[in-house]
Amino acid sequence: VETDFVRWLLATLPPDDRLEVPAGDDAAVLRPPGNRRTVVTVDMLTEGVDFLLGGMLAQGEPTSGFPPPATAEQVGRKAVAVSLSDLAAMAARPEAIVVAVALPRQGGRAIADEVAKGVAEMAAAYDVAIAGGDTNAWDGPLVVSVTAIGSVSPGRAWRRDTALPGDLLVLTGPLGGSLLGRHLAVTPRCREAEKIAAQFAVHAAIDMSDGLALDCTRLLTASGVGGVLDLPAIPIHPDAVRLHNLRPGDGRGPLAHALGDGEDFELLLAMPPEAAAAFVNADQNQLLAGTSMQPAVIGTVVAEPGLYGRQADETTVPLAAEGFDHAFD
Amino acid sequence: VETDFVRWLLATLPPDDRLEVPAGDDAAVLRPPGNRRTVVTVDMLTEGVDFLLGGMLAQGEPTSGFPPPATAEQVGRKAVAVSLSDLAAMAARPEAIVVAVALPRQGGRAIADEVAKGVAEMAAAYDVAIAGGDTNAWDGPLVVSVTAIGSVSPGRAWRRDTALPGDLLVLTGPLGGSLLGRHLAVTPRCREAEKIAAQFAVHAAIDMSDGLALDCTRLLTASGVGGVLDLPAIPIHPDAVRLHNLRPGDGRGPLAHALGDGEDFELLLAMPPEAAAAFVNADQNQLLAGTSMQPAVIGTVVAEPGLYGRQADETTVPLAAEGFDHAFD
Repeated sequence: VETDFVRWLLATLPPDDRLEVPAGDDAAVLRPPGNRRTVVTVDMLTEGVDFLLGGMLAQGEPTSGFPPPATAEQVGRKAVAVSLSDLAAMAARPEAIVVAVALPRQGGRAIADEVAKGVAEMAAAYDVAIAGGDTNAWDGPLVVSVTAIGSVSPGRAWRRDTALPGDLLVLTGPLGGSLLGRHLAVTPRCREAEKIAAQFAVHAAIDMSDGLALDCTRLLTASGVGGVLDLPAIPIHPDAVRLHNLRPGDGRGPLAHALGDGEDFELLLAMPPEAAAAFVNADQNQLLAGTSMQPAVIGTVVAEPGLYGRQADETTVPLAAEGFDHAFD
Repeated sequence: VETDFVRWLLATLPPDDRLEVPAGDDAAVLRPPGNRRTVVTVDMLTEGVDFLLGGMLAQGEPTSGFPPPATAEQVGRKAVAVSLSDLAAMAARPEAIVVAVALPRQGGRAIADEVAKGVAEMAAAYDVAIAGGDTNAWDGPLVVSVTAIGSVSPGRAWRRDTALPGDLLVLTGPLGGSLLGRHLAVTPRCREAEKIAAQFAVHAAIDMSDGLALDCTRLLTASGVGGVLDLPAIPIHPDAVRLHNLRPGDGRGPLAHALGDGEDFELLLAMPPEAAAAFVNADQNQLLAGTSMQPAVIGTVVAEPGLYGRQADETTVPLAAEGFDHAFD
């Protein structure tokens, strides 16, 4: 359904050559780049779970497991970012997005305006066409759903089910404590993925949305293999330390935050050892100029299923596949 | 995010050749048919506006302007159908869908199961690949968002902004009273659109989602033209008469229901006169075998903007662009 939200979204944008028929018709028509595959993913953000609109939660120490307040503009940005992160995890180049929103009847117009602003900012920053949307008004809270469409050469998408024993597990940046604010300023690794894919062999990939232990387990399970994480090698974000210091009594140290917090949106790659070595040393070699990754080898893929952590004293412990749980009954 | 809902959705489905990487990864990879354009549209259905889950509303006479109760399976079917209807209105062949849901935490599992069943039924009936999804649990009501991806030959999509003065307005079937049940058993005109597009010249098209007067105005306004509807020629569905008889005192006759009810999902086509004549006579000529349309010429496109109705006595009246209003403040 054509509506204000989409019109606002498009009002300031120039025509996009990738759209043979732009947003505003029953559907948009995309010109896919020659001989490329179409990659598609959808992510939905819901108020009260993925974000809480500002003003409804007391400021200060973050409540356990609950994100701090966001502006509607941040919600718009994040909704686009998490879908683009899925494209990055496929090594796909973002081409277009469509956005569906359910707006609270009260105050919906102001919220729509802000969400549209955030969506447009991210679309511009990542050079994706806005190909349409659907606006709904209802008596419920805000819901934003973004479908992202990308392209990749045939057979070149990074899958999660093709890791091989002997691969090294490589992470593109530090993890943990995203709840302190990074979860509202998500930087999808799209350009980084394209550069990596062009230069290094990658056997499998997944993005860190629900926590390293859980997402790594997904990759390993899908591939029918197991993994051993070198726990001291896992890069810990300063936010993980800050969050631990804010809540010292909860029994979760910085490493636990890095393993379980989620919403980091770094990439976890399974790479043959020589490719992994070349990648983590690429910074010195200027191969990845223009990106801001801190790649680190954090473990090894093994034939035996299961996820284990090797501690500093060389002992190994089983790691639970814990992370953000989308539970319902 | 990979979740149960999507796994259930896919559990019973055979592998689909259109998917190079199937659902379950960070994104799906589609093989578009050679030298075709990708067509994309999204529609979101929200509980309380587009449907009310059964058991929450007294049976019997439909309440004014509010849909009667639906099963979660019907919601799943409808969510797919309305997106496919948008593809039909572009003359695009459906290729794939992705589905995002927000499920109530209480009872969400049973609802997810039913929604998935409805989605899978429609996907099978219209031969579309299920390319992925996103499941969310929250404390709010049910939301289902379906993005549909189709294909069309370059330059062959039916736009809504290309109607020309002198075109005839052709409708693919009768309108009105969909609230009595047809709104939960939507039959998108996908195969019909493909057959029409292959045989007849169509200058512009739109599907009837929010009501003839409103949707026709959208087509005319987008094209920078106006239209005159031949009111006695508008095919009125028996449900429009039934709904009028159920609520005789509301001042809305069967024609008003046909003009304003929405959710019929017939197509409105702007065609050159000779093409329109050939199309409405096509049934006799077996050109559209296997379809169940009752095409009718219902008006004319004129240069002067505005929408008018010509009555049986040849007088004309302005028609308000009224229909379902997705209002918010």
